Amino acid sequence: MSNITMEKIVSLCKRRGFIFQSSEIYGGLKASYDYGPLGVELKRNIKDAWWRDMVHGREDIVGLDCSIIMHPDVWKASGHLAGFSDPLVDCRNCKERFRADKAPGAEPGATVTYAEGGKSGGKKLSGTVDPRGYVCPVCGSPDLSPERQFNLMFRTSLGPVDPLQQIADAAGELAALDSKSRMARLAEIVGQSAVYLRPETAQGMFVNFRNVLDSSRLKPPFGIAQVGKSYRNEITTSNLTFRTCEFEQMEMEFFCKPGTDEEWFAYWRDTRLEWYIRLGIHRDRLRLRDHEPSELAHYAKACSDVEYFFPFENVVGTGEWGELEGIANRTDYDLKKHSEYSGKELEYFDPDTQEHYTPYVIEPAAGADRAALAFLCDAYDEETVITPKGQEETRTVLRFHPRIAPIKAAVFPLVKRDGMPEKARAIIGTLLKEGINCFYDQSGAVGRRYRRMDEAGTPFCITVDSQTLTDDTVTIRDRDTMAQERVPAGGLGEILKQRIWGEK
Amino acid sequence: MSNITMEKIVSLCKRRGFIFQSSEIYGGLKASYDYGPLGVELKRNIKDAWWRDMVHGREDIVGLDCSIIMHPDVWKASGHLAGFSDPLVDCRNCKERFRADKAPGAEPGATVTYAEGGKSGGKKLSGTVDPRGYVCPVCGSPDLSPERQFNLMFRTSLGPVDPLQQIADAAGELAALDSKSRMARLAEIVGQSAVYLRPETAQGMFVNFRNVLDSSRLKPPFGIAQVGKSYRNEITTSNLTFRTCEFEQMEMEFFCKPGTDEEWFAYWRDTRLEWYIRLGIHRDRLRLRDHEPSELAHYAKACSDVEYFFPFENVVGTGEWGELEGIANRTDYDLKKHSEYSGKELEYFDPDTQEHYTPYVIEPAAGADRAALAFLCDAYDEETVITPKGQEETRTVLRFHPRIAPIKAAVFPLVKRDGMPEKARAIIGTLLKEGINCFYDQSGAVGRRYRRMDEAGTPFCITVDSQTLTDDTVTIRDRDTMAQERVPAGGLGEILKQRIWGEK
Repeated sequence: MSNITMEKIVSLCKRRGFIFQSSEIYGGLKASYDYGPLGVELKRNIKDAWWRDMVHGREDIVGLDCSIIMHPDVWKASGHLAGFSDPLVDCRNCKERFRADKAPGAEPGATVTYAEGGKSGGKKLSGTVDPRGYVCPVCGSPDLSPERQFNLMFRTSLGPVDPLQQIADAAGELAALDSKSRMARLAEIVGQSAVYLRPETAQGMFVNFRNVLDSSRLKPPFGIAQVGKSYRNEITTSNLTFRTCEFEQMEMEFFCKPGTDEEWFAYWRDTRLEWYIRLGIHRDRLRLRDHEPSELAHYAKACSDVEYFFPFENVVGTGEWGELEGIANRTDYDLKKHSEYSGKELEYFDPDTQEHYTPYVIEPAAGADRAALAFLCDAYDEETVITPKGQEETRTVLRFHPRIAPIKAAVFPLVKRDGMPEKARAIIGTLLKEGINCFYDQSGAVGRRYRRMDEAGTPFCITVDSQTLTDDTVTIRDRDTMAQERVPAGGLGEILKQRIWGEK
Repeated sequence: MSNITMEKIVSLCKRRGFIFQSSEIYGGLKASYDYGPLGVELKRNIKDAWWRDMVHGREDIVGLDCSIIMHPDVWKASGHLAGFSDPLVDCRNCKERFRADKAPGAEPGATVTYAEGGKSGGKKLSGTVDPRGYVCPVCGSPDLSPERQFNLMFRTSLGPVDPLQQIADAAGELAALDSKSRMARLAEIVGQSAVYLRPETAQGMFVNFRNVLDSSRLKPPFGIAQVGKSYRNEITTSNLTFRTCEFEQMEMEFFCKPGTDEEWFAYWRDTRLEWYIRLGIHRDRLRLRDHEPSELAHYAKACSDVEYFFPFENVVGTGEWGELEGIANRTDYDLKKHSEYSGKELEYFDPDTQEHYTPYVIEPAAGADRAALAFLCDAYDEETVITPKGQEETRTVLRFHPRIAPIKAAVFPLVKRDGMPEKARAIIGTLLKEGINCFYDQSGAVGRRYRRMDEAGTPFCITVDSQTLTDDTVTIRDRDTMAQERVPAGGLGEILKQRIWGEK
């Protein structure tokens, strides 16, 4: 992968219509992207592959599609709203974000020592406690951001009245309050109509657990899957779509009997890693990383990340492991919290054993945008080829697995006459009925058309030539080997379906 | 359709897992819904059918997938932000929402007459002008709501700083301002980080017009299509998913040469109506309704709605025409506005004629949720059948077109032994590879299993029985006719594909 750089990926993405900067004509919106004609097909194929493998291909998982704006009490129960009106502080050393009022106290002016990055074995550093009189609860560092109101969730307002009008009406009252009471009163005013963009799709599955149980005839172990957008008001980096405030998730919550959770956790961790490998990602650029106990979210018993080695630039060179998917054992935390906050019973009653229990949840949570980025980076290749005129030329090719390639097959008439365009279009019509997305191109030399399809990652190019008109055969040119073979036009559908969706 | 009521639809939707109230365990969120296991498949099939017919099936249309949060200048250019800090008023007579400061003045206390509902020929009504001294600019009625800050767009804030903190810091300054300046100052404070949830997907296509032109090799006439969520802070009604603040659109912007726009408008109006008919909606419950000149948005030259006759309850009984899709001739309004606001050239240069022009846009804009609701209502049927024991029974059946049915085929082993379950599962595995979503059910009498699938709208039920084990044939039971036929198990894939996706 020495020839892959993010610069090349970004350039190809824009040039060929995979990914554009969002609102580019207005100077762009920071860390926000739009998928172009090829990108939207790539991402659709990834999401469809996930749905087919996770939902349609299994008897024990069903789908769900929840609204992004949910009842605000959902976020009270889930813990996402905690700290809504609390001052939060970021640790500049270990990156932990914490509530100032819960931080361990320390003498202002005192010198404290802590490990660099908060890592055990990290270099010993020392610093002075500032007048606020506390240190980071995780690493003990006094190197802290100012206190500020911060919530990862995007807040908006539902209903016909703009809370700004209510704030304006209360201006006199607000001005008379002390700073802390004023924030509390403001939070109360906006709280009357505040709703949030979900920070994860997962809560939709927990909140609908009972509805799904009652309307289907499933019993644990079973899963509920959802694909959809989530939002986090995060500090973003510049690695294209790797971390964006608006992103799309592919999440599945698998409900199982307590005691079987560790087994299912291992099953899903392995199954999910395997999924990326089956879709063609290089095995040596993938790894599973188990979380350290100190990294685990408070509700999680175990968590393991599927990571991909992205060609990001960093201080030590090119290449960095980044998370594609997290597989977590969320225990019965979520269902119990929602039961507590809603007052609704969210247990499962097993009619066979007459047992009541709250299922444990194993969650494989993948990012669709990150997967798309990983597939793009992984597919990118450059090779030197010799042109028919004997010159060296660099061929840029995206070696996508056919299942996720945006265009499955391009169909070319060799020339724009003798009925070849009509025949090529008839072939496209037939393939389309088989669900094979095709692209018609008749302009320029065939060699140049091949190159354009190489850059789009199209695995098969079919050419209609003069022989086609006599014996109804066409050539299929393979993107990776560049080899051509001649096959009967009538058998194309079966051949392509086998090469695209057939198991290897 | 006399036996269809919304009450029955709502009840079936919840019972069978099509549509649940959002966040139901928390008392629900007004006019917000989640799609359950069957509903998510129905909606996916509708969106996939649209994508296949509008994008994959055509050489002249490509897809796009934009972020929901776009640069705020997009909404300045589109006109959606106008009135951000202006007081708006609703006319209670004709439902027009207008800016108070632009309304025609009238003498407070004067009596004015106006037509009921603002309709020509409507009953003559009279009323008194209130102290605000203006009437509705459309119908002249003085029956008006209070003035209030109102914007259909959901506003949120991007970045690490909560604008509430900034408002709190400015409390003293705000309290000292007069009411109008105070609102302006508040708008200015939140404006520093304000972003909006898009109220339509369309602007994404306009803003990316140049990017798509440059990265593809399309030239007008061509279209850009997008499926995705949009948000409008609207007053909602209680007709299930007909009008919700969060909704999903299927929009296509078709760019054509000025002068050809009327022809393309007529083409798309007819093509889109035809689409619903081809997917099985009763022809007599569909109509095209051309907008009156007074109804047209300021940018539109013409607009026509595809309407469906929904079984909504209203003052005159059951049944009401509701919009499924609007086909509009948006002229060159949007591209010109974005060119003006961004300073970027958004014309097309035709290399053949050496002409520069700003394309006109024909937009078929459909609602995915409304389509799903129409398909549900249209498919709903009840009929009286005679059970094997000779008793009358009501059969509830959803007569979905097979292309949009959530489950295409159920596969049953007649009994849970003799290798029938294994054979049924093997059949499912084979069908799945053909992209046919199947459901396995082995519990209860076959007659009851059929009934459950009737309510789910599953067009085909395949039963593995003892004969299957000797001659490898199975029965296919048709949902609508309830007739059974025996076919070779090996030919199932082809038979079902023809019945699901084959053109009739």
